[in-house]
Amino acid sequence: MRCLSLEFHYPNGKKFIQPGEKKITKKTKEKDFTYSNRGMTLEEDLNETNQYYLASGKAVIHKKPTPVQIVQVDYPKRSAAVIKEAYFKQASTTDYNGVYKGRYIDFEAKETRFKTSFPLQNFHQHQIEHIRQVLNQSGIAFVILRFSKIEEVYLLEGKTLLFFWERMENGGRKSITFTEVAQYGHKISLGFQPRIDYIKIIDQLYHLN
Amino acid sequence: MRCLSLEFHYPNGKKFIQPGEKKITKKTKEKDFTYSNRGMTLEEDLNETNQYYLASGKAVIHKKPTPVQIVQVDYPKRSAAVIKEAYFKQASTTDYNGVYKGRYIDFEAKETRFKTSFPLQNFHQHQIEHIRQVLNQSGIAFVILRFSKIEEVYLLEGKTLLFFWERMENGGRKSITFTEVAQYGHKISLGFQPRIDYIKIIDQLYHLN
Repeated sequence: MRCLSLEFHYPNGKKFIQPGEKKITKKTKEKDFTYSNRGMTLEEDLNETNQYYLASGKAVIHKKPTPVQIVQVDYPKRSAAVIKEAYFKQASTTDYNGVYKGRYIDFEAKETRFKTSFPLQNFHQHQIEHIRQVLNQSGIAFVILRFSKIEEVYLLEGKTLLFFWERMENGGRKSITFTEVAQYGHKISLGFQPRIDYIKIIDQLYHLN
Repeated sequence: MRCLSLEFHYPNGKKFIQPGEKKITKKTKEKDFTYSNRGMTLEEDLNETNQYYLASGKAVIHKKPTPVQIVQVDYPKRSAAVIKEAYFKQASTTDYNGVYKGRYIDFEAKETRFKTSFPLQNFHQHQIEHIRQVLNQSGIAFVILRFSKIEEVYLLEGKTLLFFWERMENGGRKSITFTEVAQYGHKISLGFQPRIDYIKIIDQLYHLN
């Protein structure tokens, strides 16, 4: 198979951005340059965190591949199959899952540039449904919320997210206020390795330590 | 997003086959037509089984999307983004995972048309490594092996697969004999709903019932 770098550019030099991924402009890159975050996206930080957990034998958690509907594939002679037509599909689950001390771990990660609230439209109905199914199966489900402007990251338990989701469905506000996230969520300390140590919070919440 | 059927055909009418997926010829389709299996692939049977588990609230287990390396995407006006160039990537984990009664479930499914042995080349080194990591994390890891000619399906525990893999690495045979699979694995009864009731075996092995 041909070896390809993860980043690529259009012929016009424009960088390809995955749908849902925040475009990092040079300006925000410079602005966010601190010890805990050097312009990395939440996804990059979590991938490095999971890589650290895996290498150190702490947990086995992976991001699921982006679901793609393949329509046309070419099989050139003497080289790898090339997908010539495909479309992004909506995922039916959350993005991350795996195992920690025998327990099933499942989460979705989202970031916002809002400072005072986290819009619930960041989540899809099917993701909420998946979180509900995982909780019914006694799995550990949660979301990781990043307020990128203030560089704060919170873990919000699945049941808490469901509470706010149902409040919205019952005619309430379409977001969780920052104050609510800070009160009902669990702030994750940011570090060098691991960057976003969410397992520490899971240890505390589920007494797995 | 455009709605596309999972099956598609080339302009010449040839059906697209995912890499690694067995091509079903008309002949084998007719031959395999019985109550328990009507020419369905192992993947189709497992997807329906998992769908049944999900709908009945028994377990939440999904197949991971095929990992694809996206190289070029077009964004036509007023229609969905089209992936114009992409390549199949090798998965870094097994294909299926999820949660059952709080426990992490992880497996790979493979079929062979051999009658007397199951070739170990059906598995990749990284999948074996992943199974080892999951077992170290006290997850429930196994493989589902289908002998398609005789329509028998077995669950082989992760630790048992590792035993035969290490035998190969130490210079032993490059396959597991059918007799060994039958002796050290667990035969899964095939039914209508669910088709391949592997959770029943997990209940027995881990006393989760």
